Amino acid sequence: MPRADRMRAQMLKYLEGVEAGDVEAVVSLFADSISVEDPVGGPPGTHVVGVDAVREFFREGFETSHPRPQREGSVVTTAGDEAAMAFTLRLELAGVVTEIDVIDVMRFDGEDRIISLRAFWNCREARRP
Amino acid sequence: MPRADRMRAQMLKYLEGVEAGDVEAVVSLFADSISVEDPVGGPPGTHVVGVDAVREFFREGFETSHPRPQREGSVVTTAGDEAAMAFTLRLELAGVVTEIDVIDVMRFDGEDRIISLRAFWNCREARRP
Repeated sequence: MPRADRMRAQMLKYLEGVEAGDVEAVVSLFADSISVEDPVGGPPGTHVVGVDAVREFFREGFETSHPRPQREGSVVTTAGDEAAMAFTLRLELAGVVTEIDVIDVMRFDGEDRIISLRAFWNCREARRP
Repeated sequence: MPRADRMRAQMLKYLEGVEAGDVEAVVSLFADSISVEDPVGGPPGTHVVGVDAVREFFREGFETSHPRPQREGSVVTTAGDEAAMAFTLRLELAGVVTEIDVIDVMRFDGEDRIISLRAFWNCREARRP
């Protein structure tokens, strides 16, 4: 399978893991040295490095909300050892549904594990031009 | 205007410049030190640094094709000094229209000029799962 297809498959597995709220399914896609910036440019505590810290980061995220990702169209683009995809997250917090537009940029190692995840996102309402 | 809104405005101007095929309008958004990777991870000649080389890069691109960008939904997400957006390019080459899905990641300096443009893209047909 061409590398671009393997990266795309990993990103779709990532979305499945997030949809299921399955921390271990998500973490299984990561290299031990995984670096997560969520969001990019966020305050301290949003850039997490190493699989143990990242597992805890996702566990806390899944516990406080139920994120349901939905891909918009078929936007998954790849080149070299990096890939990017756009999707929408629907978060339910205290009965209120918030829609968040996300673009994730990921970098992969030679064994198709994710070594870097950079998440750009805004609440949908806040960023309509 | 909040920084996220200023970055978004610059990215929309970028799309307008590409749609018009207006090299100078596009280049006016860039800092002198602009770095363009188009595509990310591409072969030699696709990572261009400096506004003069980048101007030539866009001029050649616009001469060989007529790219017409179309934003998909309202996907423009921002955080810190970086922003990302997803859109489709329609390229007409020798009468054949090719659709390309693009995700552009841009970094901005303190005067809202683009200092880095990283373009992820695939032809639409090739990357449907």
